[in-house]
Amino acid sequence: MNRIYFDNTATTAIDPAVFEEMKPYFTEKFGNPSSIYSYGRETRLAIENARKTVAQVLHAHPSEIFFTSCGTESTNTALHGAVEDLGCRHIITSPVEHHATLHTVDYLVKTRGVKASYVRVSPKGYIDLEDLETILEESKEKCLVTLMHGNNEIGTRTDIKAVSEICEKYKAIFHSDTVQTLGHFPIDVSSFKIHFLSGSAHKFHGPKGVGILYVNRDIKISPYLEGGGQEREMRSGTENVYGIVGLAKALQMASDNMEEDSGYIRGLRDYMKKKLEEGIPGVCFNGDPEGDSLYTVLSVGFPKTDKSDMLLFNLDLHHVCASGGSACSAGALTGSHVIAAIHPKDQTTIRFSFSKFNTKEEVDQVIEILKKIL
Amino acid sequence: MNRIYFDNTATTAIDPAVFEEMKPYFTEKFGNPSSIYSYGRETRLAIENARKTVAQVLHAHPSEIFFTSCGTESTNTALHGAVEDLGCRHIITSPVEHHATLHTVDYLVKTRGVKASYVRVSPKGYIDLEDLETILEESKEKCLVTLMHGNNEIGTRTDIKAVSEICEKYKAIFHSDTVQTLGHFPIDVSSFKIHFLSGSAHKFHGPKGVGILYVNRDIKISPYLEGGGQEREMRSGTENVYGIVGLAKALQMASDNMEEDSGYIRGLRDYMKKKLEEGIPGVCFNGDPEGDSLYTVLSVGFPKTDKSDMLLFNLDLHHVCASGGSACSAGALTGSHVIAAIHPKDQTTIRFSFSKFNTKEEVDQVIEILKKIL
Repeated sequence: MNRIYFDNTATTAIDPAVFEEMKPYFTEKFGNPSSIYSYGRETRLAIENARKTVAQVLHAHPSEIFFTSCGTESTNTALHGAVEDLGCRHIITSPVEHHATLHTVDYLVKTRGVKASYVRVSPKGYIDLEDLETILEESKEKCLVTLMHGNNEIGTRTDIKAVSEICEKYKAIFHSDTVQTLGHFPIDVSSFKIHFLSGSAHKFHGPKGVGILYVNRDIKISPYLEGGGQEREMRSGTENVYGIVGLAKALQMASDNMEEDSGYIRGLRDYMKKKLEEGIPGVCFNGDPEGDSLYTVLSVGFPKTDKSDMLLFNLDLHHVCASGGSACSAGALTGSHVIAAIHPKDQTTIRFSFSKFNTKEEVDQVIEILKKIL
Repeated sequence: MNRIYFDNTATTAIDPAVFEEMKPYFTEKFGNPSSIYSYGRETRLAIENARKTVAQVLHAHPSEIFFTSCGTESTNTALHGAVEDLGCRHIITSPVEHHATLHTVDYLVKTRGVKASYVRVSPKGYIDLEDLETILEESKEKCLVTLMHGNNEIGTRTDIKAVSEICEKYKAIFHSDTVQTLGHFPIDVSSFKIHFLSGSAHKFHGPKGVGILYVNRDIKISPYLEGGGQEREMRSGTENVYGIVGLAKALQMASDNMEEDSGYIRGLRDYMKKKLEEGIPGVCFNGDPEGDSLYTVLSVGFPKTDKSDMLLFNLDLHHVCASGGSACSAGALTGSHVIAAIHPKDQTTIRFSFSKFNTKEEVDQVIEILKKIL
């Protein structure tokens, strides 16, 4: 039986066209992009073209785009920079952020003495913007607001334009973790004010090991990795040329086919939701799949029974890849901090997440397998 | 005319066998290694096997090996960890280290108030071990000693076992940047005491974008990148699976063929040195190519003339890739800090660096081209 991969929020397969684009840079065009001879210039050119592509997709200036090794590095860089270089002494975030944000905030609280506040989140996972404004209004310090664009576990999205307007009003620095939305939703940084944005290639059919950090040109932070001064002194370390080339190609493709792909994937997700409602008694859905949500994610709550406890394990036996929450903490048995923050109900949570490579037939098969297991 | 690549200290071509080993992990085996289903477990297994390979080559324990995005990240992590977690308040380094070390030391001096001392270096680039001992003896603080194993610009090596013994005597923490020696010289961490060691795959025919950090199991530092807790809480961010697989394969191959490859490459370098001495009047050599040196590097000083000023540029026109110093600062016109530290003589420095893919015929061609240009 074929494997059914319904865990595209954890990571996606590289698109074969992306891999083709990367290939020449493995064994032929391998020069160090910092070298001044022509062999280095051809990889330098590849990187600068990649930067232009990313900038174009985001409506940013190429000088605002920096390549990193992952979304986590981007977020660490932004948060440290806001505290160390931009003077932010109060970080406002939410309890449903990714650990790349939450653990970095914890670290900054512990070691740099900054204050942290957590914006209230609704049962569907929406950020309470009034609460955000109240916290900003009452703060006496320079604030950093870090709120993700789309939640990786339950899919709920945040209106980052609205957050941006509130931040502008209180002169706060604004970072958004757009790891789950970059390449899936249009993001136009020229249409609202945002200071930092983190993204990761392997979430939109690009390679692992490469991310981007957008830094608004109005601000300047110091590098998080010190060394040879690559990325215009912002990120040292020999550039991951194939990774960068792959990221740009994947983002370009995602952007070009966004309307078609998103319609198709949303169709799969809605179809699965309908089938689950029809076929599995007592299911519920975390987040707000009918509302402003990632179309890639369906977070399902199954009534807690002996059988549902073993659900993930049994899905695996049937060659279905799904997840209990974030992949990053899948190994840990502590349960999801996101589900805990929004939904104290007793349920077994399974996140199914979809890509353009999935099919309706796969959904049908998974529904049949679920019926059999439960 | 074919390109002649004599800049293998800057970066090396991926070995085709390494690329073959990586390939399945791009489009087929792409599961997130933190996922608990079988699809994730196969990439998890690939990573843990890679870790065992690296550990075996270094005579380390697998729990002492961490994968990072580059040598620069490894060095940043080690130096920050030594200061933030191990209480080092005095960093002892040398003026000929890579910028990944020197700039991180500068940063720690500026922001964490630690003290820095620079060990004296001989005209051939050797670390003055007596001076190191004097500095350690006189220091009243807990010390971190960070000295590279082989210099990337001039090739001079440091006896890290001897440094280790001195560090042990003064209970100093010892980090070595082994970016240029890992995969080129045997390193056996079980035979001497070292706390940290940084390495980078693309210097031994592995992929760019992946490095290793060895952390001796007697010490514990906090992660430099916070997030999902990958790499046993030491390095967050979804693992660069293909990169890690490629690093291990490249290191295994380098280790298996070290005797043969090193003899061959040393032969090329010595041949080029002889040919230069015979054919180009007034050449000299930086470092100590006859002594304890990287066999991959020949750093040549050409007498300063109008013609030698344009040498790199003209070599490029003849499709020869060589470098003025470190690739990382090739774009900068400030000159090499390494050459400045050891050799205030007026010369034009060109670094030729070799790999197993180079040939004697290429050396002959480059000698002819040099004669023509000069």
